[in-house]
Amino acid sequence: MRKSRPGRQKSCPAKRERIPSPSGQNAFQKHSEDFVYRELLEEVKRDHFSGASELAHKAARTLGSFCQEWPNEDRNKFSDEFIWLAKELVRAQREITPIFNLANKTVNLLKSQPARLNARQIADQIAKEVSDFEKNSVQALAAIWKEGAELLPAKTTVITFSSSASVLGIIRQANQRKKQVEAFVCESRPLLEGRRLARMLAEEGMKVNLIVDAASGFFISKIDLVLVGADSISENNFVNKIGTYALAVLARQHKKPVWVATEESKFISQEARGNPAIGGDPKEVWQQSQSNITCLNPYFEEIPLNLVEKIITNQGILSPAEVPNFIRQFPLALELVEL
Amino acid sequence: MRKSRPGRQKSCPAKRERIPSPSGQNAFQKHSEDFVYRELLEEVKRDHFSGASELAHKAARTLGSFCQEWPNEDRNKFSDEFIWLAKELVRAQREITPIFNLANKTVNLLKSQPARLNARQIADQIAKEVSDFEKNSVQALAAIWKEGAELLPAKTTVITFSSSASVLGIIRQANQRKKQVEAFVCESRPLLEGRRLARMLAEEGMKVNLIVDAASGFFISKIDLVLVGADSISENNFVNKIGTYALAVLARQHKKPVWVATEESKFISQEARGNPAIGGDPKEVWQQSQSNITCLNPYFEEIPLNLVEKIITNQGILSPAEVPNFIRQFPLALELVEL
Repeated sequence: MRKSRPGRQKSCPAKRERIPSPSGQNAFQKHSEDFVYRELLEEVKRDHFSGASELAHKAARTLGSFCQEWPNEDRNKFSDEFIWLAKELVRAQREITPIFNLANKTVNLLKSQPARLNARQIADQIAKEVSDFEKNSVQALAAIWKEGAELLPAKTTVITFSSSASVLGIIRQANQRKKQVEAFVCESRPLLEGRRLARMLAEEGMKVNLIVDAASGFFISKIDLVLVGADSISENNFVNKIGTYALAVLARQHKKPVWVATEESKFISQEARGNPAIGGDPKEVWQQSQSNITCLNPYFEEIPLNLVEKIITNQGILSPAEVPNFIRQFPLALELVEL
Repeated sequence: MRKSRPGRQKSCPAKRERIPSPSGQNAFQKHSEDFVYRELLEEVKRDHFSGASELAHKAARTLGSFCQEWPNEDRNKFSDEFIWLAKELVRAQREITPIFNLANKTVNLLKSQPARLNARQIADQIAKEVSDFEKNSVQALAAIWKEGAELLPAKTTVITFSSSASVLGIIRQANQRKKQVEAFVCESRPLLEGRRLARMLAEEGMKVNLIVDAASGFFISKIDLVLVGADSISENNFVNKIGTYALAVLARQHKKPVWVATEESKFISQEARGNPAIGGDPKEVWQQSQSNITCLNPYFEEIPLNLVEKIITNQGILSPAEVPNFIRQFPLALELVEL
């Protein structure tokens, strides 16, 4: 199981590290730092602000550039360097499941290539796969929005937590279909992402209520449905912003359904995923906290799938019982599992 | 049932209202505004910042001053004026159960006086009752602290919500007895009263963790006990700061006990209590909120007593099943029920 790192650091080193690649003398003719893929790798490492989709796009561009820039036909060297780069990307953003899945997919593709192909031919194959990944992730969101908007009954009151592109799109599209959805949005301390979602929903002209997270227990009896996104989803649970678990337990107590909306690229075997990272900046909880008070600031938590009724994906609607089989579609590359 | 008013207003009228008393021409010799009790009544009406105990003390001083200042022996006039004043105090602070209970107790005492006594003799009796109420409420807190500190097992990790004098005292005293209590304190949005409690506990040199309210679901599995105060407690539920219900439901899900610490003066029949007030200032949720987003800001909520294991009072430890009988000790004055 991959171990979680102690938290996403907000600071970045003043000088860029030079990471030796596995083949010692780099297979590229010029200094590796002159290549675009190295620039992009450093950018992925430094980026602790973008969302999962944006980060996955950056990782895809990194792998794509590497393939385009590969200078010779030495298949073994290409293979070693590619796997090294895939691992670097996963290590750089361990919590971002779509990056892991992109790395996994491309490493598996690399390993399945017939012996007759040279590095150039393989690099072209992988570049195409990476480009498809980018296109698919845009299409995946659109598919989820459509599916979810169809599924939402008219005049539904939905409660949600934090800010999810999937949830935004579903409610927006349902509203455009005149389904008269009303939303309760939890503000989502400490970073208050809920305000952003509330603003975007309000722009649609729909009825939006913003509440403090602690008020979710008060309003749970007034809503019809809990609808949330996911940072990742595994055989028995999904990971989402802290506070989602309490909301799901309240929903269970009040017999309200919980739906999770998430793309294929967020599915990952528990074996490969590890635990969600702990340790946002304590100052986000209380800027002026005294030294003798410990401010604990976990960003993410696991929510058991037995609290969930439906999972809306770009491949259709799943029940929690169908998730393990869905994950088994994507075999794990051993090189990444051991990270 | 008493109806809740639409929320505690933060502003007070620029000019003091002159409320006619029921006997028309006031029974006092000089203008009623010259009496201390009228000053104190206005102060109670204006006070939307003090806690329940402090407000009850102010109400007690109001009734005590009225009794001391009463100028003649006309028993009927005294009775009418006293009941009018008691009602005014209850109306001024409807959510403050100790004020209702003080008014109720003194009106009942007034009505039970034998026919041979004159106004002066009755006023003295009531003044003594009021003075006892004040003394008792200080002693009640001390009794709860002692009782709770004895009950808390050593090395307990407690989670609490908002800021309660009962909870503070219990944990402080348990810690002074070397019980090594560790506290998780929810910050309690929107007004963040949890920070104040965290600071006071940290001054005791104990281990204090402050968390966002949404993180309570993450930490519930790591604590032994939920310990909260109450604004009031009735036959089937208690009222406390918004967020307490979600915490109690999480505790039930994780089979953790919920204890409520509260004085005798917070017990009130549901019949007399009405619903907790809704409607704090929406700006407390989001100062810069747009007009097309509704910020809902309920301060209090009801928590069913079937989620509670123990109630720590100054009269000993109660189970939820014992609460209705405990409340029956205090008969209701009809004059106040109809308010």
